[in-house]
Parts: sequence; structure tokens; C-alpha cells
Amino acid sequence: MPDISKRGREAPASPIRKLSAFAESAKARGIKVYHLNIGQPDLPTPPKAIEALKAIERKTLEYSPSQGYQSLRDRLVGYYRRFGISLRSDEIIITSGASEALLMTFLACLDPGDELITTEPGYANYLCFAAAAGVKVKTVTSWIEDGFALPPIEDFEKAITERTKAILICNPNNPTGYLYSAEELYKLREIVRDHDLYLFSDEAYREFQYTDEPHMSVLSLFGIDSNVIMIDSVSKRYSECGIRIGMIVSHNAEVMNTILKFCQARLSPPLLGQIVAEASIDGTEEYSKACYEEYLSRRNFFIAGLNKIPGVYSPMPNGAFYTVASLPVEDAEDFCKWCLTDFCYVDPDETEPTEKSSPDNFIAKPRKKSDGWTGETLMMAPAGGFYSTPGLGKNQVRLAYVLNKEDLARALLVLEKALEAYNAR
Amino acid sequence: MPDISKRGREAPASPIRKLSAFAESAKARGIKVYHLNIGQPDLPTPPKAIEALKAIERKTLEYSPSQGYQSLRDRLVGYYRRFGISLRSDEIIITSGASEALLMTFLACLDPGDELITTEPGYANYLCFAAAAGVKVKTVTSWIEDGFALPPIEDFEKAITERTKAILICNPNNPTGYLYSAEELYKLREIVRDHDLYLFSDEAYREFQYTDEPHMSVLSLFGIDSNVIMIDSVSKRYSECGIRIGMIVSHNAEVMNTILKFCQARLSPPLLGQIVAEASIDGTEEYSKACYEEYLSRRNFFIAGLNKIPGVYSPMPNGAFYTVASLPVEDAEDFCKWCLTDFCYVDPDETEPTEKSSPDNFIAKPRKKSDGWTGETLMMAPAGGFYSTPGLGKNQVRLAYVLNKEDLARALLVLEKALEAYNAR
Repeated sequence: MPDISKRGREAPASPIRKLSAFAESAKARGIKVYHLNIGQPDLPTPPKAIEALKAIERKTLEYSPSQGYQSLRDRLVGYYRRFGISLRSDEIIITSGASEALLMTFLACLDPGDELITTEPGYANYLCFAAAAGVKVKTVTSWIEDGFALPPIEDFEKAITERTKAILICNPNNPTGYLYSAEELYKLREIVRDHDLYLFSDEAYREFQYTDEPHMSVLSLFGIDSNVIMIDSVSKRYSECGIRIGMIVSHNAEVMNTILKFCQARLSPPLLGQIVAEASIDGTEEYSKACYEEYLSRRNFFIAGLNKIPGVYSPMPNGAFYTVASLPVEDAEDFCKWCLTDFCYVDPDETEPTEKSSPDNFIAKPRKKSDGWTGETLMMAPAGGFYSTPGLGKNQVRLAYVLNKEDLARALLVLEKALEAYNAR
Repeated sequence: MPDISKRGREAPASPIRKLSAFAESAKARGIKVYHLNIGQPDLPTPPKAIEALKAIERKTLEYSPSQGYQSLRDRLVGYYRRFGISLRSDEIIITSGASEALLMTFLACLDPGDELITTEPGYANYLCFAAAAGVKVKTVTSWIEDGFALPPIEDFEKAITERTKAILICNPNNPTGYLYSAEELYKLREIVRDHDLYLFSDEAYREFQYTDEPHMSVLSLFGIDSNVIMIDSVSKRYSECGIRIGMIVSHNAEVMNTILKFCQARLSPPLLGQIVAEASIDGTEEYSKACYEEYLSRRNFFIAGLNKIPGVYSPMPNGAFYTVASLPVEDAEDFCKWCLTDFCYVDPDETEPTEKSSPDNFIAKPRKKSDGWTGETLMMAPAGGFYSTPGLGKNQVRLAYVLNKEDLARALLVLEKALEAYNAR
């Protein structure tokens, strides 16, 4: 039997791959599992986007252009203009999700052995794409005590070697929810310019920014037009992760031409997803506002609730819909597994609200066994998988607030009970 | 400005990238262009598949599982059973087209510097995926004089080195339409077993086989279960290239687990495409039969027509919907370009059928200028881009018979007139 590839062996498995099997098993035992582990929004896709899909009249679902439909790219030009970003449509390539955008960008810009600097904790899949491309990832650590702010610029300088070719950020950040300040972005610009590096920025959460300022893209940074590659996606902002539509945006024509070669080899991005995406972009102001307010309200509620649980700490994230929280346990991975294999919470009072445990003024309604569950538990992503430095983040988890507030309130209650029981073993 | 990657520089551009711009320009001048250059079927997608899409009731278009929906994979198990191939659903991973399947397979099995042997002329995009993966491609040549049969097995043996890790075939073949015989596949099995190589087989055209036997998959080859990775796609057989649904099929659990790591990093294959694909697979017998008969009839008509043009030669392909034909020109690339930039055919008789030039009993109906065209030309893919050995295939083109017979008849007439005019310059 031939060997698999070295990069295949070295590519990290998804941090939640094993846990997913335990979650399935818990569900099979009749346990309700609150999924705080994945950024799968529960909100509806814009109804008009689903209508556009149902209104298609074409008889043959044929290839679209390798760079994506002109009409979609034109619409995106208008979209970015609203953020003060001026683009031509040939500076946008449509991809099969931000995932393909990242892999294509790595392949076009970096060679095996090249080094990429990113922050930790970071989006775990970056490591897998880097492994696929043979690229070495060096991380600079951001700390929960600082609210996961951009590490001091000296830390980046220290990580730069002769092989360093790019810095990758995610802004707002997955997994921490941290939103980079203009000042931090200016500092990054200086390093990028001084060392002539690429600056890759994953801005999939650009519209999830809970401050009064508009989102600042790396595309707005002056004087580094050829260095900047921005990765974006419609997945999160329109709750349409399944359509697989992302994009690569850059003023660097040579990079875009190179990426286009790889894109032509894979023929085309998803046709149906492009129809949905195009219909999602405009005329959904009311929709976007409602989503935004829902997430903002969830964030306030959820982070406050977390910090009320004894021993739990979460910074207040200003973006995305994640937070990385520390728990009063030594090994969060073991705790996350235990929640799925050894624990379930059964409401002692099946009829009355458990008012005591409800954070803020939101009441965690009791769950009746007659709902068909024998109990409740929750699934979280252990944060260790988001760090490259061994040992860091051992007592941390990433939590996504992509459930309605009623479920979030239950999840907080269940988390509190689980911690009590785990530490009392 | 940072450099692009070496692999980005070395990745071949699509052989028709430049020509596409000339084709657009010809259309802008009012010329009707017959596209024989791309495998974009003109037949309708199964209507029930489009109905399934329009019948979706979900409110949120969410991620599907990384390996694809269980229901789709279950249905595929039944599909392959009809071809005598016995599989479990976890031996199938759904990908974003056969394109992603190929790239994932290369990444999981091969490392930079590893060698892959394939036949030439071959599918040009293999070279681009190999470049992306840092894999060196060695080709063994198949010849038009032999109808592009599998080269003698000794040619493969000669190409094997210490770094050889895989053989890649496309069966039925794109671009030649050649269908491998059982005997040829048995020979390949021996090499693969003797040298412990992977055997990758792209079987996207499995149902386009114009002989009386059923298609023979590499999955049926005895004793090399762990070596075989089969790549498939619903694109061509259901005329739904745009939905981007392909698959990787293998009994090798280690390879499948490794591929799954990469698939989890990219989160999920297209959700909407999976709904269309699943509805396409079963209950479309009548549809499949009609498509098959249409392509068979086109093949017979088109290949006969080609061979009636003075100086043109095409073998009779037994599979897919392509042929590689030689033309009475020195430089097919120049001729293909000239057809788009310097030539157009204007029917001398605007009302009467040009019976003389119609091959077989199919009459090429004249095109009236009142149709809005000022003339006609055709776009072909120069075959040079399908060869790795410089100089080979210089007088050859790849032609796809994905137009209705009326248009094919016109395209043949236009090709004949173009060759006359080109050689009379």
C-alpha cells in the first residue's frame, strides 16, 4: 500500500472531529446538545435570495465563468463602495467559499518552505491549508488578559525571518471575536511595507462589528496596494454557509492572474450559490439590520452570562460571533468530551422557570422531558486546537453565539451545572 | 511588491484562455461562434432535479457535512452497485466538482517532488493541479495513428523512477474520447501492483461509452483495493456542470481519512448542488437513455463529417464526447486563432440548403443574415496544450460534440471553408 503524503500526515485534524462523534452518540441517547462549537448561524437566509433561486428559468445548470459571474462581481463592486473601498470588477474573483479563496491565495503567493505569520489563537483551518501548501506557520500569541488584542508589533518583528512572505489576520477575529483598531492596522501596514510582505486578511465577519465605527478593511491601508489580498465570504453575513460563495479581492494584478490560472483549472465556482449570493447583497438592509441587532443583543447577553458563572472569564468581543473563554478546569478538551460522554443536565423542576440561573433579565425556560429529551448538554470547541504553541489555551474554549437567546440561556445554565459536576467528581 | 510563488509561475494557463478573448471579440463583431472548444453539454439538466431544487423548504442554507450528505452518498452506493461496484458510504467523499477531488487526492497522496505518470494528450487541468501540489508529471504518449490507445506497457515501465508514486488515467478519455479495454486496465493493474503505486482514475465520462459492454471501473480491478482512487462527477452525465458536485471513491481508509482532514478544513461541499445531484441520480432512466442516444448519434455524425473534410483525420472515439483530430495545417493554434480573428463564413446562398456540404444525410440549413449574424466561425481547443512533450499535437485540435446536430453540421461546413481559406492565403 503506497504511503500517504507527508503533508497529509502533518495536516492537523479538525479540533472538533473526535468530539463530533461523541455528540452524535449523545444525541442517539436522547440528549439535547447545544452546539456552541461551530459558526453555523441559525438565522434565516434572506427570503428574497431563496426566492431568486426558486425563480431560475434556466434548463441547463451550466458552468459559470472561472472568475464568477460578471453581474455578481459588479454587485460586489457596489457593495464595497459602501464601505469606502473602490474596486474594479476584475479585482474580485469568486471562489467556493472563503476556504477555497485561502487555499488559492496560499498556492499563488507562497511556496513550500515559505513562512506565514499569524496570531494565535487563530482559525484552525488556516493551519490545514498551510500544511496543504507546504507553508510553515509561525504564530505570535495574543492573550486573554489583553482581550486578545493584536500582540505588540515587536513580537511580529521577532518572528520575521528570511523565509517570511506573508502575514495573515482575521478581522474581526475567529476564534476570539477581537476587532483590530485602526492603530493596530497601521502598525501592521508598516511591517508589511518595511519587509515587503503579503498581508492576507480574512474579513468574513466584516459586518459583525459592535462598535460605532464602520469596519476598516486592509484594502483601505494606504501605500500597500500590491501587498494586500482580502478574503471575504457571504456565508456568515447572510446565513448562507452552505452555498459556498467566497471571494478574493486584490489590486495586485499579477497575483490575481496567477490565482485565475488555478481557478480556470477548477473550471468554475458554484452557479447556484452565485444566484443566491447576488440576490442577497442588495436590498436586504432591513434584513441586515435585524441580524445585526440580534447578534449584538446575543453578545451582550451571552458574554454577561458567561462571566456570571463562577470561575469563567470571557473578554467582551467587539466583532464576529465568537468568544474564547477560560473555564475553571485544567483540561478543557477533557471537559468538553466529558460533557458529551458523561454528563447531562436534567431540570429538577419541570414546570417552573429556574429564575435563579437566568442571567440578565432573560429567563431560562425549563425543558420538559416531554420534549423528548432525557437531558441536556453542550458542545464546545476546546481552544487548544486554535493555538500552535503547545500547552497554551488548555483551559479555554471557543464558543459561538449562533443560537437564539432562549437556547443560549439554557446553554449557560447547563454549562454552569456541568462545571459544578465536573469539579465535584 | 512580493513575488508570486514559483508554482504559480509554473502552473500552465488554460490552453484556451487567450482564444476566449478573441471569441468574445468575434461575437462583439456580430459573428456566430460555434463552441467546439469546451465540454459544456447543451442538453437539459434532468427536470426533476431542477424541481427538487425549487421545492426546498429550508429557511437557512447551512453547511452540509464535510464528506457530503449521507443521503447523497447512500444513493451513490446504489448507483455504483448497478455498475457491479460494491461500496460503503464512507468510501465516498463529496467534493466541489471532480476538480476539487483531483486536487485533494494529489494533496493527500503526493508530496512536492513526487512523480505522477499520465498519458498525453491529457486533460490540461491535471498539469495545473499537479503544479499546485508541487508534483512532477511525466507523460507517456498515445498516438493518433493508434486511435490514442493506451501506450505499450513498456512505455510506462520506462517512465517509472524512484519518485514515481501514482499513475493517473482518464477513462473514457478527455481529450481523446478513447475508452480503455479490459486488457489495457489489467496491464495497468500489474504495473500498479508490482511497483506499489497509486492508480488515480478520472471516470467523469463513465456513462458515455459507445460499445456494447458496460463501463469497467478501476474499482473492479482485483487485488489493488488500497491503490485505487476513483474520481467521478455528476457534471457531464446529467448536464449540470455548474452545480460543482464531484466525488472521491476509494477503499483505502487511510487515504480517505487524510482527504477528510482537508475536506473538513474547507468545511463543506455545495449544499444546493447536492440536492440537485441526489435528485438526478435515480429515476432518470429515460433521461439517461435519451442523452446517450443523442450523443451516440452526434458522435457518428460528427466523426464521419470530420473525416469527409479533405486533410482532416479523426479516430472513432468510443467514449466521452470529445475527439482529437488532425488538420491539414502546420500550426493548429495559429489556425484556431485565425478562425476567430481573421475569418468568418458568409453563406453564399441565403435560402437554399447547401446540400453538397452536408455530411451524411443531415442537411446543414443555411443561416440567414437576418438571424442577426454577419457570418459564422468556430472555436476549437488547440491540442498542443494537452501534450507535455513540446512539438507534439501541433496540427491537432480537441473538439467537443456538445452542440445539436444542426449546429454541428454548420460547424463542419464552416471548418471546411475555414481550412480552404486558411490554406489559400
